[in-house]
Amino acid sequence: MTTIMKAKEAAERIYDDIRSRVHRLKEAGTQPQLAVILVEGDPASAYYAQAKRKIAERLGIAYRLHELPANATEASLVQLIADCNADPAVQGILLELPLPAHLSAHRIERAIAPAKDVDGVTPANKLAVVTGEAGLYPATPQACIALVKHFGYALEGADVTLVGRGQTVGLPLFHLLQREQATVTVCHSRTRDIAAHLTRAAFAFVAVGRPDTVTADMVHPGLVLVDAGINELADGSIAGDVAAGAGDRAAAYSPVPGGVGTLTTAIVFRNLMDAIDWQQKEATGE
Amino acid sequence: MTTIMKAKEAAERIYDDIRSRVHRLKEAGTQPQLAVILVEGDPASAYYAQAKRKIAERLGIAYRLHELPANATEASLVQLIADCNADPAVQGILLELPLPAHLSAHRIERAIAPAKDVDGVTPANKLAVVTGEAGLYPATPQACIALVKHFGYALEGADVTLVGRGQTVGLPLFHLLQREQATVTVCHSRTRDIAAHLTRAAFAFVAVGRPDTVTADMVHPGLVLVDAGINELADGSIAGDVAAGAGDRAAAYSPVPGGVGTLTTAIVFRNLMDAIDWQQKEATGE
Repeated sequence: MTTIMKAKEAAERIYDDIRSRVHRLKEAGTQPQLAVILVEGDPASAYYAQAKRKIAERLGIAYRLHELPANATEASLVQLIADCNADPAVQGILLELPLPAHLSAHRIERAIAPAKDVDGVTPANKLAVVTGEAGLYPATPQACIALVKHFGYALEGADVTLVGRGQTVGLPLFHLLQREQATVTVCHSRTRDIAAHLTRAAFAFVAVGRPDTVTADMVHPGLVLVDAGINELADGSIAGDVAAGAGDRAAAYSPVPGGVGTLTTAIVFRNLMDAIDWQQKEATGE
Repeated sequence: MTTIMKAKEAAERIYDDIRSRVHRLKEAGTQPQLAVILVEGDPASAYYAQAKRKIAERLGIAYRLHELPANATEASLVQLIADCNADPAVQGILLELPLPAHLSAHRIERAIAPAKDVDGVTPANKLAVVTGEAGLYPATPQACIALVKHFGYALEGADVTLVGRGQTVGLPLFHLLQREQATVTVCHSRTRDIAAHLTRAAFAFVAVGRPDTVTADMVHPGLVLVDAGINELADGSIAGDVAAGAGDRAAAYSPVPGGVGTLTTAIVFRNLMDAIDWQQKEATGE
C-alpha cells in the first residue's frame, strides 16, 4: 500500500504555528506584511500571487501586491525593491518568477535586503544554505525535507538520490540534506544511469522541471519518492517530474499538485515570521 | 600496475605558464606580489609559508611575509588585511591556517578583498564556486580535479564518491565536480557504508583530514583514488587520509606528500595571476 504524501496536514500545522506568531506580533504592535512583486505576462505567476493573497488574509498578514507591466525596466524593479527594503512596514519581499525575458532575475533578486528575503534568493542567504549559518533558506528545498519528516521518515544516514542540481531547488536541497546527515548522490542530465542510482536509494527527490523524468520502471517498492517539479502541460494542467502512475510503485510518493508546492507556500509565510524575528534582532542590536 | 599520480609534472606545467604570464606582466610594468600572513605558533604553517617564498622567488613573484605574534588580536589582523587590500602593489593575500584558538578564521577571512583572495576563502568567492560565476576558487579542490585530468582521466558522466564535506575542500570540490559533469555521491561520518559507495565508484576523492579514512579493503582495482588529506602524525611525518598500501590496490592513486598538496601550491600562484587579471579589468572598468 503506497503512502500518498499529501501536504495539506503538514501545511496546516505550519499555518497554525504562524497564526500564533502573528497573534503575538500584533499584540506587541507589529503588523506582518508581505510585499509580492509581479511582472505581468505569466499566467501561472499571477495565479500563485493570488493564492498567496488568500492565505495571507486567512493568517492575518497584510499583503501588498506590486503589479508591473510586462515592459517594466530592470531599474524600475530595483527601485521598487529598494523602496520595500527601506519601508519598515514591509518585512518580506517576494519576486514572482519567471520574469519576462528582458529582465535578469539574477540581478534583480540581489537588490532584496537579505533580512526580508523570504524565498532565500539573495547571495547572502544562498551562501548561508551552503555554510549552515543562520539565514532565510529557499522554501521549496525546505518543503521537500519537511514533507518526508511529517510522514515520519528519517533521513539521517539514509542513501538519498537527488535528481536535478538547479540553483533554485536541487543545489540548496543538496546542502539541506547534508544538515540532515543523509548520504546524497546528485544525478543530472549527464548521469549515465539514473535508474541505477534510484534502485539503491531509500529516498529520491526529483527537481528537474521536466515531466516524466522518473518513469515507473525506475521506481522500486521501498522508495520514498518526492516530486519537487511543477510543470505546466500543453492542456494547462499541472504535472510534476514523476510520470503518472510511477509513484504508485513506491513505498510513498508526493503528489503534484498537493505535495511539495502546497508546503512551499506555507514555508514562505513561515520565512516571513523568521524574517520579522531577524529584523527585530537587528533593530535591537542583538 | 597502479599509476602513482605524482603532481610534480602537472605543477611544473602550471609554473611554466605562470612564468610566461609574469614575464608579460613585468614587460607591461606590473610586478606581481603575494602577501602571506602568518600568525606564529603552528610549525607546519611556518613551513608552508617558507615553501611558498622559495617558489615565488623562482617565478619572479615578489613575496611579502607578514609575521604576527601568537597573541595577535583579530583587530590587528583585520587592519593588516585592510592595508593589503588598499595597497595596489599587493595583488594577492593569503592567510596561513590554522590560526591560534583565540582567532576566528571565519571572521578574519571575510576582510580580504575578493579580487585579492587567492585561496577563495571570502564569501563572494565561496558563492561563485556554488553558482559557477567567475571568481577565485579555492586551490585544493581545483588541484584534485587538475591532477586526475593531467593523468588523462575523464570525469564527465563518471560515478564519483567524495568522502568529506568540509567547507574548505569537500563542499567546493563537490561543486567543481558538478562543473565537470560527474555524478557525485558525498559520504561523511554518518554514512552507513562508505565502502559500498567506493566499490561502485570510478573515482574517489578523500578529504576528511583523518589518517586511515580509506583502508585497503575499501579499494577496488578499477578505482582512481585521490587523497586530499594532509595529516601531521605524532612522529612529525605527513600522511594523507588513505591508509599506507591501500592505494596500491587501485588503478591509480595520488601520494601524500607529492600529490594534491604539490599541485595546490601551484594553483595558489595561478590564482594570483588570475587575480591580477581581475584587478586590471576592474581598474579599466570592464
